[in-house]
Amino acid sequence: MELNLHKYKYKFQVRVRNFEVDSLGIVHNAIYLEYCETARFEYIRELGFKFLPGISTEEGIRVMVKRNEITYYNPARIDDLIDVYTRISYIKNSSYCFEHVLINPETNIVYCDNKSIQVNLNLQTNKPERISDKYRKPIIDFEGNDIELIEDKGKSSG
Amino acid sequence: MELNLHKYKYKFQVRVRNFEVDSLGIVHNAIYLEYCETARFEYIRELGFKFLPGISTEEGIRVMVKRNEITYYNPARIDDLIDVYTRISYIKNSSYCFEHVLINPETNIVYCDNKSIQVNLNLQTNKPERISDKYRKPIIDFEGNDIELIEDKGKSSG
Amino acid sequence: MELNLHKYKYKFQVRVRNFEVDSLGIVHNAIYLEYCETARFEYIRELGFKFLPGISTEEGIRVMVKRNEITYYNPARIDDLIDVYTRISYIKNSSYCFEHVLINPETNIVYCDNKSIQVNLNLQTNKPERISDKYRKPIIDFEGNDIELIEDKGKSSG
Amino acid sequence: MELNLHKYKYKFQVRVRNFEVDSLGIVHNAIYLEYCETARFEYIRELGFKFLPGISTEEGIRVMVKRNEITYYNPARIDDLIDVYTRISYIKNSSYCFEHVLINPETNIVYCDNKSIQVNLNLQTNKPERISDKYRKPIIDFEGNDIELIEDKGKSSG
Repeated sequence: MELNLHKYKYKFQVRVRNFEVDSLGIVHNAIYLEYCETARFEYIRELGFKFLPGISTEEGIRVMVKRNEITYYNPARIDDLIDVYTRISYIKNSSYCFEHVLINPETNIVYCDNKSIQVNLNLQTNKPERISDKYRKPIIDFEGNDIELIEDKGKSSG
Repeated sequence: MELNLHKYKYKFQVRVRNFEVDSLGIVHNAIYLEYCETARFEYIRELGFKFLPGISTEEGIRVMVKRNEITYYNPARIDDLIDVYTRISYIKNSSYCFEHVLINPETNIVYCDNKSIQVNLNLQTNKPERISDKYRKPIIDFEGNDIELIEDKGKSSG
Repeated sequence: MELNLHKYKYKFQVRVRNFEVDSLGIVHNAIYLEYCETARFEYIRELGFKFLPGISTEEGIRVMVKRNEITYYNPARIDDLIDVYTRISYIKNSSYCFEHVLINPETNIVYCDNKSIQVNLNLQTNKPERISDKYRKPIIDFEGNDIELIEDKGKSSG
Repeated sequence: MELNLHKYKYKFQVRVRNFEVDSLGIVHNAIYLEYCETARFEYIRELGFKFLPGISTEEGIRVMVKRNEITYYNPARIDDLIDVYTRISYIKNSSYCFEHVLINPETNIVYCDNKSIQVNLNLQTNKPERISDKYRKPIIDFEGNDIELIEDKGKSSG
């Protein structure tokens, strides 16, 4: 696995809690998705806006997770610190992709990586909707050359 | 502890899942509250109505938990079956009390008991509101002589 | 998406609980992985053995999730029933793949599908280990012609 | 409710996550117990030792929660900051009591308070065991005059 951590301009740290492990004493496979989502909320907050329920895309972004691909390399255990490296790797018309690598900052152990595709939804229709420039621009500015811009010609969603 | 299980006319069974234990391999202390709530939803369903978000008290009951008192006796572990004995022990003007005892049906080990006080809220005002007869009656019919009816004179909540 | 549900010989039903939704009122994306794992434990129980912590492969299977690929189609909400269709689609030397489709039995709405790759670990070395015939055979018997048998020549893991 | 926050010498801040709310959009009643436990782990870390699974009381404290009493005053919602004020209010032979008050630092809204009684267990016998001076002393030093010392004469547990 080539980590390419230099592409990640944001990270958020979590600590493994007592109730996040399973009966083997290791973090449960679903919990890493919670860590990733927590990091996404903080990434979005860092950019000056919010994911919020029940708001229009004028005031925030209303997204749904469309797909998660997560590969587990090493198990994390109680009290471990985890840096959740977080970036948006591409942005399309109505969707974009968060990539995460979860690493212990003290030991450099890689716990897992996750590719999480999000879709921006129109609040009234519940259908995919083009991400407005208001949010598109700060994301592109923040990610710089490392984000891929994918235009879907003739499609209303992507 | 005197169990008085004969007062309990309803029970709902859960099985301990892999992700519900903590780093000691035992069910985390917060998870038992989830078991109790699951049993409360099924109890209410058994009586023919629903707890639902965003609905008026004509169509359902909108409650908030006001207090939990939970005592832990023995730890449950992965794969254990748990019978969640569930009853409403008293009903006041706008509040009522669920009591739960959690027992392993195979070994009779008592895991914990919980007293959970609920308040019925008016959807518009978010203030406590008298539980309407539509819900009061089926509860009293179901619990029979074992439910205590407490009237709060001159109070709008209780 | 072609569902091919006829390949699924096992399903396990769950009901969406109040605490499994997120701030949009829909089941959180990580929770579906819990539903899948619950179904895997029940599938394994159906076959007459167990996933258990701290036991040798003589007595059970000690597995770790290696990868999850989950695609979300429609959001589930509180109280929804979900049939978790569950099968093992292939078995290799030390790994195998669970496939799940999550469907509402009342409405036929498809919530998501998940491909979850598991690795059998040796308890002492924590390294991948060939799945013993004791577990391999019941799985193959149960899945019949619909399981793919993949032998990795000259590899100790796979 | 008299808060007496001046007795609290430790607080730990959490932020409400998207997946911690229920179908009403408010933090689920069980989640507050997770916040309290997280704060207890950090309090113990602050004092220079650890709660850990599978270790003797020479190296750490192995505790089980014996009872939780939690009263809910106002609901917390997604993104809310919560200061979990945390103190040990009394220490007996083998048990002690954590008290928590959960407050929004920006609005001073009180979400709930929790009294959580813990028992120190001997790793071999799983029976209550006197908390050794190694842990008793730092706790008493930290809490100063605000901790109540309760000796149980002639009892091996308390």
